[in-house]
Amino acid sequence: MTNFRFELIATDSAARAGKIVTAHGEVPTPVFMPVGTYGAVKTLTPEELAEGGAKIILSNTYHLYLRPGSDLIRRLGGLHSFMGWKGPILTDSGGFQIVSLTELSKITEEGVTFRSHLDGTSHHLTPELAVKIQEELGSDIAMCLDEVVHPTGDRQTLEAAVDRTLRWAGRCLTARTSERMALFGIVQGGTDLELRVRCAREMTAMGFDGYAVGGLALGEQREQTWEVVQATVEALPSDRPRYLMGMGTPGDLLEGIERGIDMFDCVMPTRNARNGTLFTSRGRLSIKTAALKEDINPLDPSCSCFTCRNFTRAYLRHLYITKEMLGFRLCTIHNLSYYHQLVSGARDAITSGSFAAYKSAAEEGWKSREAG
Amino acid sequence: MTNFRFELIATDSAARAGKIVTAHGEVPTPVFMPVGTYGAVKTLTPEELAEGGAKIILSNTYHLYLRPGSDLIRRLGGLHSFMGWKGPILTDSGGFQIVSLTELSKITEEGVTFRSHLDGTSHHLTPELAVKIQEELGSDIAMCLDEVVHPTGDRQTLEAAVDRTLRWAGRCLTARTSERMALFGIVQGGTDLELRVRCAREMTAMGFDGYAVGGLALGEQREQTWEVVQATVEALPSDRPRYLMGMGTPGDLLEGIERGIDMFDCVMPTRNARNGTLFTSRGRLSIKTAALKEDINPLDPSCSCFTCRNFTRAYLRHLYITKEMLGFRLCTIHNLSYYHQLVSGARDAITSGSFAAYKSAAEEGWKSREAG
Repeated sequence: MTNFRFELIATDSAARAGKIVTAHGEVPTPVFMPVGTYGAVKTLTPEELAEGGAKIILSNTYHLYLRPGSDLIRRLGGLHSFMGWKGPILTDSGGFQIVSLTELSKITEEGVTFRSHLDGTSHHLTPELAVKIQEELGSDIAMCLDEVVHPTGDRQTLEAAVDRTLRWAGRCLTARTSERMALFGIVQGGTDLELRVRCAREMTAMGFDGYAVGGLALGEQREQTWEVVQATVEALPSDRPRYLMGMGTPGDLLEGIERGIDMFDCVMPTRNARNGTLFTSRGRLSIKTAALKEDINPLDPSCSCFTCRNFTRAYLRHLYITKEMLGFRLCTIHNLSYYHQLVSGARDAITSGSFAAYKSAAEEGWKSREAG
Repeated sequence: MTNFRFELIATDSAARAGKIVTAHGEVPTPVFMPVGTYGAVKTLTPEELAEGGAKIILSNTYHLYLRPGSDLIRRLGGLHSFMGWKGPILTDSGGFQIVSLTELSKITEEGVTFRSHLDGTSHHLTPELAVKIQEELGSDIAMCLDEVVHPTGDRQTLEAAVDRTLRWAGRCLTARTSERMALFGIVQGGTDLELRVRCAREMTAMGFDGYAVGGLALGEQREQTWEVVQATVEALPSDRPRYLMGMGTPGDLLEGIERGIDMFDCVMPTRNARNGTLFTSRGRLSIKTAALKEDINPLDPSCSCFTCRNFTRAYLRHLYITKEMLGFRLCTIHNLSYYHQLVSGARDAITSGSFAAYKSAAEEGWKSREAG
């Protein structure tokens, strides 16, 4: 077994407050993980990430495998040391990027053959290699290589992908050599609830450190997404963390938490920040709007982040208009901090048994038009 | 008179250590001023600027006049408040950008007519307006509008520009209404030493708070540059600060200090950082070099900046290759900190009467090939 541990601290209906213990420290859950694609959460230093409330970050195996190479990162002491982040790191398996970024991926039982989106060179990723790369990176939580297919595909395709995902998960478990790296299984099955439940049960039988719900928010109806999350979570053990991959909006976080999800990641807060879309307690705010030209209020008067403590909307708008990188930074700091505050507020609410009221109040706030 | 004051603290041959007192605090000299074109030193927060050793920054009248507008900045409380920088700010007059960035500038005795490089709109800048804009920005040190011509132009052109620069300087003095804003005259005259000396003397007779040497490093031979600096400085009063505009390399800083210059500005440390060229005690280092791929040393082992304390060359190279904004930031932090350390070391050396040895040692270090 690994050094990894999950403790359930409180529940409020299906919502859970807990704690993940890793080789690089503890993570209170529910938690949002900022995405650091290339070993850096875009624009930010590790210091700023921590100051903004990040407890754990996600980094992408596919991208780091290509640049600078996981073997190089291993020789330099691992990803924590390379990027200067002292907290836990979760890495994905690379499977999703291969499907979404590379054109000529060929999937066989052995693994995935793909061409780099950077230089067209050919690569072959197997479940065993996905684990090896994540061990080279020094990941605290690794993900199994899974087969992602369109969630509303036909039953046969979905079932074949689930079965392959299960076989690959078994190979990942066998391939792991690191004592300190946790390994999560990923539940697939598209929007087919029966398949999802079977996948969750068989995955659980294999005994992973945690379980992810994968392959969602890929075009299915949003009601279907939450049906799948709920059915999957109900089929998973309560003593292991549950991670909803790649979602989403602030609203998605609360919907997921309500259904018993403990971990989230998404590029949305960081990417939207660079596009000038800010998340606030009163809904989304576009920093480009001319209406903000002389607005000396902070982005979100209820927010205590570095950006809101120190800069006005007028200045942030000016930085956006003049394409100053400082603007991308300050907006990223705010959006991430907003996500962290939202999730940590949810944790407090769960602990005090008031999550439903917390969620309604947040949703009421987002409907307000005052922000933008 | 203004709140502005200059104190000469020590001299070492022509080199000087001093102190400038402004409405926003004191500045030990010699000093290097980072350039914050649009009310932000590219990629950095005011906090980081200060942490890196910045005591005063420069901002560009031309750019801020166009975006977001100096009237808007005035209404929002001035540039210090707008950008969150608590220390002194020097602003240029806009004259240089008009000549270098706009195509259709027409210069008459009244002022300069130009088209915005952004949207082609026509604008008219006079000495009076240049002062007014800088007062609206809330500048601590304003510059007179001057006429910049090519430094090796013919005597007649140079002389006409000097005479106009002197008349415009007089109009700027008259136009100033702010008690707390210092105003510097700019000495022109190209590479004609006689003209430079006359301009310096006539400018001095008008009684400015400080004097700048302008119109250099625009294509003349480097020996000519230093001849002009030396001749000009000798014709300026010793009880006022002397500012060499727009230069330059670390070597230029020491050459200038040796000849009695107190203040410098240049985009070089910030712009080069974004292009991956780092200044170190062992000479320039290109962060792109494949040789740095596994180099776990800091950029400059003699440097104590945030970047050198926390990150390796290998990581900075990786950030550069993957175009991560964090890389631009970390390199900017280092280059500026290197400049500040160099100049503050020069100040200590002047105070202890060892500037010549300090300069030789620095120059020896730059010749070392170990860095690159």
